[in-house]
Amino acid sequence: MSYLDRIRACHTWPAETFRPFLVGGEALGWVAHDFASRLAEFPQAFDVTDKAVALPARYADFDSRSAVLQEVIQELHGRGEIPNWRGEDYGVSRRWGEAPLFKMERAAVPLLGLPAYGVHVNGYVETDEGIQLWVGRRSKHKALAPDKLDHLVAGGQPFGLSLMENVVKEAEEEASVPADLAARARPVGAISYLCARAEGQRNDVLFCYDLKLPADFVPRPGDDEVEVFFLWPMEKVLERLRESDDFKFNVALVNLHFALRHGYLDPDREPDYQAVVQALNGV
Amino acid sequence: MSYLDRIRACHTWPAETFRPFLVGGEALGWVAHDFASRLAEFPQAFDVTDKAVALPARYADFDSRSAVLQEVIQELHGRGEIPNWRGEDYGVSRRWGEAPLFKMERAAVPLLGLPAYGVHVNGYVETDEGIQLWVGRRSKHKALAPDKLDHLVAGGQPFGLSLMENVVKEAEEEASVPADLAARARPVGAISYLCARAEGQRNDVLFCYDLKLPADFVPRPGDDEVEVFFLWPMEKVLERLRESDDFKFNVALVNLHFALRHGYLDPDREPDYQAVVQALNGV
Repeated sequence: MSYLDRIRACHTWPAETFRPFLVGGEALGWVAHDFASRLAEFPQAFDVTDKAVALPARYADFDSRSAVLQEVIQELHGRGEIPNWRGEDYGVSRRWGEAPLFKMERAAVPLLGLPAYGVHVNGYVETDEGIQLWVGRRSKHKALAPDKLDHLVAGGQPFGLSLMENVVKEAEEEASVPADLAARARPVGAISYLCARAEGQRNDVLFCYDLKLPADFVPRPGDDEVEVFFLWPMEKVLERLRESDDFKFNVALVNLHFALRHGYLDPDREPDYQAVVQALNGV
Repeated sequence: MSYLDRIRACHTWPAETFRPFLVGGEALGWVAHDFASRLAEFPQAFDVTDKAVALPARYADFDSRSAVLQEVIQELHGRGEIPNWRGEDYGVSRRWGEAPLFKMERAAVPLLGLPAYGVHVNGYVETDEGIQLWVGRRSKHKALAPDKLDHLVAGGQPFGLSLMENVVKEAEEEASVPADLAARARPVGAISYLCARAEGQRNDVLFCYDLKLPADFVPRPGDDEVEVFFLWPMEKVLERLRESDDFKFNVALVNLHFALRHGYLDPDREPDYQAVVQALNGV
């Protein structure tokens, strides 16, 4: 087991299994071949060929694209073909910061392999012995990654919020962090990957935040996401990252990024240092 | 002008201009076609074809590879064909941390487009108004990048030193930083690029270090690298990065990396955020 195993697990991409999903003639997502056959039942919404699934050019604006996709997704949901329904819309854009091309129920986003954005917040405490990281254990009843280790706060990016608004909202909901404390979180980078998983094609950009916390602050689970929080020395976090897949697949990436940025991996001592940096960068 | 211009300047790579340099049958570097013709004059050292330049398989260990390459490079140097002679050996390996395949005069490394390693140390001060960064102005008499803005400390990685030993050595030489203070520098990541420049093909990995300095510490130029040091608020550093190419080409990358890690670029405000991160990652 090594750090590289954690990163490779987020870049599992059997390209031959997918065909591109085209919007405005450009690849925006990736559809599995068997799901493409099902989408062929909806010729009003999809032009399906052996090579690609395309949204017809007549859907040329945000509202018309969102409406036709919602119609199909609701129909598939009614047939029980879209699990993990969230009742929450994502805005879909080629790149963060660009105007969304449409909005769509979150559960359908990986089925079309569309770009998805999220915030991942590491809460930490500086002590004389080094950094300690708040680690949550996810509920056993979560649909995705039950019982895995998680950040203090993380969440998908709902349509219509800024990233920082989402950080503050999720921090209150998941860990009972007061808004004024959560607002001290600082953006420290972003991590991208393309990964085939049970829930679909994850085409994710994770915006990473560091939140330095006072030593006397103790987070409390605020919803059904996380059952319990632990405060772990970085050495323990790194050992778990190296020796197990106990951390949720993408949380492991963000924690390696954190360890790199805070000097917990040393290129004079870690033989995989350059490989870890490059794999994390997606090259 | 934008941050992206700074990053693109370090990834200028007209691939059709180069052929691979093979060692042990694998591409290790890149040779310009016209330089390949000159290397064809040394059949004892190079098998030159239209497709590649190869080190013959009979040079199968560190000493024999280093010796034959040194012989050719000395000969070319004698003819005045290797400018910027340094009298300093680099260790050449496929990846940092692997045993070097050979050592070679530093000035010849970009002519063969070989992997080169260096340390880039940002010295900074935390104030109530935010971070201030120590910025050096390079001497007008430097062969490479005269008069450009630089870090507190940076240097190529000579054969036989650890990165941290090099940080401490260069910190003393370039900025008169005492060893015990320099030793507080923390590794915070690495940046790679492949870039065609006047001096040759730069196939570099820069190991980045952060050195938090006391407010009362003032660096002094210790050799002929840097003429003067300034302490600049990050906002001024960022403005120069955006609006000019005053920073040395690769120093700009490391400073953008620093700005990202310390929360000075905000994905809610910077439209190029995702593009900057991906370009910096080399994807």
